[in-house]
Amino acid sequence: MYIGVDYYPEQWPESRWPEDVRLMKELGVNVVRLAEFGWQLMEPQEGKYDFSLYDRAIKLLTENGIKIVLGTPTATPPAWLIQKHPEILPTDENGVQISFGARRHYTVNSKVFREYTKKIVTEMASHYGQHPDIIGWQTDNEYGHEKSDRSYGEEDREAFQVWLQKKYGSLEQLNKEWGTVFWSQTYTDWAQIPVPRKVYQEHNPSMLLDFDRFCADAYTSYNRLQTDCLRANIRSGQFLTHNFVYTDQAINQWDMSEDLDYVAYDNYPVWGGLAEPVSPSAIAHQHDLCRGTKNGKGYWVMEELSGAQGWSKIGYLPRPGHIKLWTYQAISRGAEAIVYFRWRAAQFGTEEFCHGILDHDGIPKRKYNEVKEVISSLKVHGDDWIASKFEAQAGVYYDPENAWAWNIQPQSSAFSHRAELLRHYAPAHKLNVATDAVNSRSDLSAYKAVIVPIYFLESPEFTEKLKAYAQNGGTVVFSYRSGVKKPNNFVTGATLPGELTEMTGIRINEYESLQTGQSNSTAGTAGSLKGLESSAEVWCDLIEPVTAEVLAEYRNCFYEGTAAVTKNQYGKGTVYYIGTALEEELLTALYKEIFAEAGIETVETEEGVEAVRRGLFLSIMNHTVGRSASVTLPEGEWMDCASGQTVQKTLQLDALGAVLLKKSK
Amino acid sequence: MYIGVDYYPEQWPESRWPEDVRLMKELGVNVVRLAEFGWQLMEPQEGKYDFSLYDRAIKLLTENGIKIVLGTPTATPPAWLIQKHPEILPTDENGVQISFGARRHYTVNSKVFREYTKKIVTEMASHYGQHPDIIGWQTDNEYGHEKSDRSYGEEDREAFQVWLQKKYGSLEQLNKEWGTVFWSQTYTDWAQIPVPRKVYQEHNPSMLLDFDRFCADAYTSYNRLQTDCLRANIRSGQFLTHNFVYTDQAINQWDMSEDLDYVAYDNYPVWGGLAEPVSPSAIAHQHDLCRGTKNGKGYWVMEELSGAQGWSKIGYLPRPGHIKLWTYQAISRGAEAIVYFRWRAAQFGTEEFCHGILDHDGIPKRKYNEVKEVISSLKVHGDDWIASKFEAQAGVYYDPENAWAWNIQPQSSAFSHRAELLRHYAPAHKLNVATDAVNSRSDLSAYKAVIVPIYFLESPEFTEKLKAYAQNGGTVVFSYRSGVKKPNNFVTGATLPGELTEMTGIRINEYESLQTGQSNSTAGTAGSLKGLESSAEVWCDLIEPVTAEVLAEYRNCFYEGTAAVTKNQYGKGTVYYIGTALEEELLTALYKEIFAEAGIETVETEEGVEAVRRGLFLSIMNHTVGRSASVTLPEGEWMDCASGQTVQKTLQLDALGAVLLKKSK
Amino acid sequence: MYIGVDYYPEQWPESRWPEDVRLMKELGVNVVRLAEFGWQLMEPQEGKYDFSLYDRAIKLLTENGIKIVLGTPTATPPAWLIQKHPEILPTDENGVQISFGARRHYTVNSKVFREYTKKIVTEMASHYGQHPDIIGWQTDNEYGHEKSDRSYGEEDREAFQVWLQKKYGSLEQLNKEWGTVFWSQTYTDWAQIPVPRKVYQEHNPSMLLDFDRFCADAYTSYNRLQTDCLRANIRSGQFLTHNFVYTDQAINQWDMSEDLDYVAYDNYPVWGGLAEPVSPSAIAHQHDLCRGTKNGKGYWVMEELSGAQGWSKIGYLPRPGHIKLWTYQAISRGAEAIVYFRWRAAQFGTEEFCHGILDHDGIPKRKYNEVKEVISSLKVHGDDWIASKFEAQAGVYYDPENAWAWNIQPQSSAFSHRAELLRHYAPAHKLNVATDAVNSRSDLSAYKAVIVPIYFLESPEFTEKLKAYAQNGGTVVFSYRSGVKKPNNFVTGATLPGELTEMTGIRINEYESLQTGQSNSTAGTAGSLKGLESSAEVWCDLIEPVTAEVLAEYRNCFYEGTAAVTKNQYGKGTVYYIGTALEEELLTALYKEIFAEAGIETVETEEGVEAVRRGLFLSIMNHTVGRSASVTLPEGEWMDCASGQTVQKTLQLDALGAVLLKKSK
Repeated sequence: MYIGVDYYPEQWPESRWPEDVRLMKELGVNVVRLAEFGWQLMEPQEGKYDFSLYDRAIKLLTENGIKIVLGTPTATPPAWLIQKHPEILPTDENGVQISFGARRHYTVNSKVFREYTKKIVTEMASHYGQHPDIIGWQTDNEYGHEKSDRSYGEEDREAFQVWLQKKYGSLEQLNKEWGTVFWSQTYTDWAQIPVPRKVYQEHNPSMLLDFDRFCADAYTSYNRLQTDCLRANIRSGQFLTHNFVYTDQAINQWDMSEDLDYVAYDNYPVWGGLAEPVSPSAIAHQHDLCRGTKNGKGYWVMEELSGAQGWSKIGYLPRPGHIKLWTYQAISRGAEAIVYFRWRAAQFGTEEFCHGILDHDGIPKRKYNEVKEVISSLKVHGDDWIASKFEAQAGVYYDPENAWAWNIQPQSSAFSHRAELLRHYAPAHKLNVATDAVNSRSDLSAYKAVIVPIYFLESPEFTEKLKAYAQNGGTVVFSYRSGVKKPNNFVTGATLPGELTEMTGIRINEYESLQTGQSNSTAGTAGSLKGLESSAEVWCDLIEPVTAEVLAEYRNCFYEGTAAVTKNQYGKGTVYYIGTALEEELLTALYKEIFAEAGIETVETEEGVEAVRRGLFLSIMNHTVGRSASVTLPEGEWMDCASGQTVQKTLQLDALGAVLLKKSK
Repeated sequence: MYIGVDYYPEQWPESRWPEDVRLMKELGVNVVRLAEFGWQLMEPQEGKYDFSLYDRAIKLLTENGIKIVLGTPTATPPAWLIQKHPEILPTDENGVQISFGARRHYTVNSKVFREYTKKIVTEMASHYGQHPDIIGWQTDNEYGHEKSDRSYGEEDREAFQVWLQKKYGSLEQLNKEWGTVFWSQTYTDWAQIPVPRKVYQEHNPSMLLDFDRFCADAYTSYNRLQTDCLRANIRSGQFLTHNFVYTDQAINQWDMSEDLDYVAYDNYPVWGGLAEPVSPSAIAHQHDLCRGTKNGKGYWVMEELSGAQGWSKIGYLPRPGHIKLWTYQAISRGAEAIVYFRWRAAQFGTEEFCHGILDHDGIPKRKYNEVKEVISSLKVHGDDWIASKFEAQAGVYYDPENAWAWNIQPQSSAFSHRAELLRHYAPAHKLNVATDAVNSRSDLSAYKAVIVPIYFLESPEFTEKLKAYAQNGGTVVFSYRSGVKKPNNFVTGATLPGELTEMTGIRINEYESLQTGQSNSTAGTAGSLKGLESSAEVWCDLIEPVTAEVLAEYRNCFYEGTAAVTKNQYGKGTVYYIGTALEEELLTALYKEIFAEAGIETVETEEGVEAVRRGLFLSIMNHTVGRSASVTLPEGEWMDCASGQTVQKTLQLDALGAVLLKKSK
Repeated sequence: MYIGVDYYPEQWPESRWPEDVRLMKELGVNVVRLAEFGWQLMEPQEGKYDFSLYDRAIKLLTENGIKIVLGTPTATPPAWLIQKHPEILPTDENGVQISFGARRHYTVNSKVFREYTKKIVTEMASHYGQHPDIIGWQTDNEYGHEKSDRSYGEEDREAFQVWLQKKYGSLEQLNKEWGTVFWSQTYTDWAQIPVPRKVYQEHNPSMLLDFDRFCADAYTSYNRLQTDCLRANIRSGQFLTHNFVYTDQAINQWDMSEDLDYVAYDNYPVWGGLAEPVSPSAIAHQHDLCRGTKNGKGYWVMEELSGAQGWSKIGYLPRPGHIKLWTYQAISRGAEAIVYFRWRAAQFGTEEFCHGILDHDGIPKRKYNEVKEVISSLKVHGDDWIASKFEAQAGVYYDPENAWAWNIQPQSSAFSHRAELLRHYAPAHKLNVATDAVNSRSDLSAYKAVIVPIYFLESPEFTEKLKAYAQNGGTVVFSYRSGVKKPNNFVTGATLPGELTEMTGIRINEYESLQTGQSNSTAGTAGSLKGLESSAEVWCDLIEPVTAEVLAEYRNCFYEGTAAVTKNQYGKGTVYYIGTALEEELLTALYKEIFAEAGIETVETEEGVEAVRRGLFLSIMNHTVGRSASVTLPEGEWMDCASGQTVQKTLQLDALGAVLLKKSK
């Protein structure tokens, strides 16, 4: 398997390069990503190309057995280009033009910028496209990151109008689909349509959702421009990828990936200002998204954190063990290559405090040794591991469009899309149920259960799939606020949960939005939930069971005694509806019951311990700092892939420890 | 009496209209407000008018016995108009132009916009002005709301300069009245005068107050433009109103109402993001303002909340009972017509989550039934009730100019104009003393006491009235920080409380601004206050009594023992001065004593229970959620207007219950 | 000595002037500062000068024995000038032009403004430069205050480019020194270089530091323009000064002072919105900075607070005693003249609530009497006191460039440059050790110890001085994060603490940034620290002692047992390294040991009691509100300068009391 580093030879004197390469070899590195911010070096003035620096670096690296992934350098348009075409710069929602001086300072809707993109990518592809040791390409870098997903300038506005024309054909249709009759917003000329710049109140939600779709589409088409230029000039063996972030920005990774061979992902469980890493389940969920984007295909971690990170503020220092832990977690969940960010901390620039395998002094120390141990531990079994199949028992719904709709209208001050999504992902993670991220593109037939949290923007296509799936015996779990919105971001005119009414066997005649700090309470009334209580936060759907059975009810307010959680037989399947945000204990108990009834095996491990099966491999990660864990192993004999020793029954795992076991008997 | 709904037929298929009207009739609705956001429908392109949709809706409604109030649609200038004249758009304090895409996107100072306003209002008035079932007009919608009160563009600046020229005649006079000698701000050309755009420090407070006056005047003159166009074209029986909000914005409801027949008001005790309704006294105070604006004349509640509200965030869900409770409270305090917002929740647009009598599904449920019960309960006695006189025993001062002056200079981080005003309003409300909102336009003679809280911007006219009133035996209550400012927002050069010195019989030689979390403490030293203690927050005036008697003193800091509350005989009257922000207990005790001495009858009800007399009617509202109340009735026999039954002595009232009683013996 | 008031005769009717002057004389005032915001009065229209108002005021004052300091009025360019040249207005980081309407509304980079400055200053100097009773000049007012230090407009950008050209000579050099190879920022034309306007991420830190230097240089050269105009036109006896603020803004007081005869300072221990004065050590530190700016020379307090302050929000009310306390503290630490701000509170303008010796009513009351007592108390011994030498035993490093570098990259969310600096200043202050502010311009030889806190931006010059100083027997104390940055704001490529490695005898192989609320803990392991514990906040350097001895170590996390505080012999000297932010108790104990070993005498006084020696004088200030103190006096007999009485051994000091003692035996 490929394990490598993100390397910036341009940031170091050439005299240092041989030492760097020697240390990389010693480390076991077999791939390096290069050049993704090197536009100015490769085109120091307009039309004059100079690849000599990277040529020399590539020569040195490949002569030492290291393969290359090249980044196209479009995330950093050079100063000469901005000087000549300042209209490339993006614009914020107040009309402020973003300045040159950092990165991602272009709007993807700039026609001029697309021309320059075509030229530099084509030149680079022509120059490097046949190189036998260059194995792949990354387009640009983290599209849409740091608010660069949305630009609100004049050229953006024109592009939005064109996009709308194509989508709706006629203004009549657009006005209908946006409900512009509200507040007299009816458009009589395409040129009247604004981008969502500052208003006194709030923009039309249907327009906002289309703007997000437009922004995502614009990036997809921009990326396609790059992949077209690349494919036209490179040999067939070089793959194309892009390093995504999954933070609900206006990027559609699913659409964009159709033009890519691989998904890549930048895995930063901590960042500047964070006092703690994000939760293990939050990291795991991101890996599920990566694996799900191309329908289960393995992906690259193009930037895997190896030290404390941050720009002007540094965040949590990863502890000894974290590098291995997060690497193992990544591979467990589907990564097939790991590239550590970054080889060495820079002495200058905005990312001075993004620490790498080496610190500023360039001397191998703790982190170097840890990475070395990780790479060495994967020497023998790494390739088998990544070749094994990750078989999910449950699907968990995620669609970026649904996330956008929520971010446009969170409806409660206590609502966070990510937090509520993870609320429903965490129980499966805690119970070590293998999950896939699914949406309307997915085939659901292989899953024993499909969890559909906060399914606000209902997709007729996905709903049809869910119905068929449940009819055929599948288990579906919905949360509160499901089935509310039509694809055009209208509220359904049907009684809630709208198209899900028959499946869920309930009617929601009323609901309550709870604000931060507010709560109702619920109590289980049936099965294993009996006796369990939980606060009810964020939202309460007041459920009237029609054909459904009540599993929990509210205990306060005028709707005391009203159903809060229900279960319905639908065809051969079962459909749950969870009408409020429950606390972990009751929710986990509920999911445990759901999984049990769906025939999904759950594995209980101590708090913070994650166990993942992938074919014959079982990896176990103890995410807790300062507490070792005892893990009961599944039946049979297991080989510790690092030591080669056999383990059985029980495994002791240090705090932040990670092991890879292979079934040996 | 009129009870109705805000209806948007344009937002629904015409095929639904008959069902809507049938349900309205069943509900008992006799009036509907229409069309206030319908500009684009009525003028789909410049100069082409089309009233057919509203014609059809009006026909259907009026054939079913429902009267109509029409809104002029100027709060939502259509896209074609903004496209042609983008200079209509307002500008924020940083110079950012507000975008098309919501509402209120015009500056009232745009000459072009005034021309277009004239045209649409005149056309609409010509078309509908003779209709026998159209009973009145609402101009525009919620002037100044959502920060639309102030615009900072070039045309605003020119209009401000013209306004100043008219006000001051000469620059010499302006410079003197603003104190521009400070920081070398002397203007030598009218064109030099800015609007208060972003500065490094803060603008001149005299300029800021004039800017607020200018903004309010601009709206008043804009409204007059509309009322002129209307009156010129409508039959005499149609009334003119505007639905105000009273949130200290730069709107002068008193001035504007001179051009209106009625005040109207939009009553939202909860809004998006609010976890609780505002306090009963805060709602009551707003009603006092409505009634006070046209000197006691009944007013319309043009939007009475009937469900949870909010744009992208939804707030507190009104409980069963709240609709009736808030309706009864409104009528108790002077509303003579109630129009519920809104008939049905919209399926699209920014206000999708403004819930109405019907929810998105259009099916009558809990709220429909509640409204039905309310309307039915008012069938017999409603007309008598609204015909009865509300007789106030005390006046409570409120002047928007004083609010503006405070908002320009809050002086303490703990100061909130609304909170401090309500601090002094709440005791009267708690003690069920009927109050009127008064200011320099009011005749004070009928009141037994006048409460003048935070009378910062002293009005010579009002002060004269207060003096005469007290001389003649009236009781006046001042709070801290009274008499500080001259009408031009200068600090008085006299020792505080300036012009009030003789009345209050005190001198304030020093004072302390307390910040959030800071406090001194006070203790009562005389009469019923003896033994009572309170923290002293926000502000401490260090009072030297000259002729006044001390009622409470400070207990901490270097001014321990200094007077905090005083009482003075002035002519035949009594003048109190409360030098700090006292807690509810001590303050209520103080007001109880004040009322008793002034001959005002107080009625003690349980916490949250409001009792209001209006002629022979006594309405009682229990604002508490989850606690029933026992209310001791005044002497005599009372009839429950809903049931017709007789009650005496004691009344049991459910949580959130509201009853209307009529004296029967 | 000079004690006076800031007086604004232009703000009062001339008929009041004689009374003001009479009261000033009665108070004991012998100097008045005038005219610093009087541009419009002196040049009411372009080129027409009129000094008559100030002529009359000066005549009246000087006839009554009061000397004059004049301010040049450039902080408030008049309206006519801005109308003619709006390009003078500064621009914020979003490109918003600051409006006329307050003060400091010019960019120092405006060529036009420099021309107008030249004219008004020259005219004023010509008019007043020979006046025998005008003793000095203040240029402008509080340069850079309230964010006016940085402007981001087109003319600023051009000036920045010119400044860079001068600094670097070639773009090649600039690109190298900024590391523009990072993110493809290499500049190929000077005109490409931006000012740090809004970007999506963060600007290059080397560019940001140069921008701060540029801003400071621009102000220095602007001030030099003024001092050149003045010196060319005034008699030799008139001094030049500027009233600084020391708030880490982009102003270099050290550079600027080279063109000034005196440093002046505006001393506001409280300001609007503050609930408490800043700590005594924070005030003391500011005085050290003042005294240190011109290498120990006495300075003026040009604005010494005499009442509550604030613009729209008023802050903490200084208690009786505070005026004297803060005056004595100022003189103790080097002030040789005190000018109270302000004579009387203004009745208009933004600073209406900046209270003075007189309040708005102009009647002498408590504060007047307090100032009178202070002035009277200094009559006899004041001149001797200010003539005495302040002899510091320790130096404490402060360099504005280091502050800028920290503010560009605070690295931890818990880091505040001021707080961390004061953390290391407070122990010396608490132990009553006389300190000087030092930096690379200072001669260190006289100090027994030099404390170098958060020495992030390492200055090779200063490091050389420290090395020599320590080699020769000096004691040096470094804190965490020292030696990290090169002058161009690059991170050193050496293992930390970089150039300080040999001095400190340690290596820092790793470190951890702690966020707000996070902490490790430390325990003393040697000497007097044994048994003491402290939390470790903000930052932890993991220290590997090479030649150093360990004084304290960490107690938690994976680096438990690692050194946190060390001590190293270096040449004849001793060098300490404190690797984390320690709590007061342990840190004070550590400094006590350091001072003891360095031969510095410490004097322990009760909490809040400050004792300062200046020659034969000993001043003692009790900063606590509400707690009197007992102070053990040094050996010998002391005279209370106010009463003339002799005191010995023990002195009782009231809460907020201040005394001046003179050694009599």
